[in-house]
Amino acid sequence: MDTTIKNVKITKMPESNFIKPFRMEFERDGKAMHWDCVKVHDSVSVLLYHEEKEAFLLVKQFRPAVWCRQKEDVLERGFTYELCAGILDKGISEEETIIEEIYEEVGYKVENVVKIGSFYSSFGFAGGKQTIFYAKINESMKKWKGGGIDNEQIEPFYLLVKDAMKFVYDENYVKAASMAYCFMWFNERFKK
Amino acid sequence: MDTTIKNVKITKMPESNFIKPFRMEFERDGKAMHWDCVKVHDSVSVLLYHEEKEAFLLVKQFRPAVWCRQKEDVLERGFTYELCAGILDKGISEEETIIEEIYEEVGYKVENVVKIGSFYSSFGFAGGKQTIFYAKINESMKKWKGGGIDNEQIEPFYLLVKDAMKFVYDENYVKAASMAYCFMWFNERFKK
Repeated sequence: MDTTIKNVKITKMPESNFIKPFRMEFERDGKAMHWDCVKVHDSVSVLLYHEEKEAFLLVKQFRPAVWCRQKEDVLERGFTYELCAGILDKGISEEETIIEEIYEEVGYKVENVVKIGSFYSSFGFAGGKQTIFYAKINESMKKWKGGGIDNEQIEPFYLLVKDAMKFVYDENYVKAASMAYCFMWFNERFKK
Repeated sequence: MDTTIKNVKITKMPESNFIKPFRMEFERDGKAMHWDCVKVHDSVSVLLYHEEKEAFLLVKQFRPAVWCRQKEDVLERGFTYELCAGILDKGISEEETIIEEIYEEVGYKVENVVKIGSFYSSFGFAGGKQTIFYAKINESMKKWKGGGIDNEQIEPFYLLVKDAMKFVYDENYVKAASMAYCFMWFNERFKK
């Protein structure tokens, strides 16, 4: 991916549609306390297994929040390797949302997904719920090249199943533990 | 855990030591864009395996951010089951931080931890780095009952290794995918 990021400015966050900071004031066992949080959307993601390629299909994209945390000396500053995913902001079901996201991000037309599990993340300040699915894909389901909609710039990344755990431990590639979990879930389910 | 939460008020978040919202303005391939983010601390966590009990030692605690997202009808509103963990805000190493947290939260004196891996979370808005360790504990290392410091109210929760994956899929218990990953990492490493 040949992306250039320039003229970065960090400014005050105005009212945002995606992140809503708030303070929760409460009494725990009679004691007054408070805690700072952000309200964010719940999300869905999917482990995609491509049959002919014997590979997982991940997405690579630029993430401003990661860019800001990294120094200039990293290999691909701000880029992450993720499960195909989306936020629940359209008023449709988790299954419908992830099927739409698969089509938009990587161009495959999937009819069914299998639920792996529901988890929460960033307990300390956000606590968003993430439901993870699994789906098999093959070349006959490919309808367009993908890449996302609006301003998204999403690159497909095929990772051979046999190389997946090596990839997990290579810290040059930014990834979530949930992805590592999915790889192991797959191995346990299909490779024994 | 017999905790009562009362008199909850949601108020505007003032300047916070833990969550710093900001907007990143930038040009991607010449196109002006912006993205809303929060700056949070990186963190460390540890999978604790208790030898005599043949159990993982987790921590159960009240998380305001999770409480706010849940409805009243859930089993234990706002409570989460987590790896023992802490944020990197003391200017000491990841290893030193997690060894301190183990002592504070569950009362065991651990000398060494083994690194499992480093992952990122909440790419879309935070991108915090989480480094996960593993440590074996036994009764001779127990120095006090734990529970955390300051206002923390942390309850130890022993989960038999043989019951761990069933626990992962029981959605009555709020947990992160990273914990599920650690259980599978342990099974693969020690049970084959």
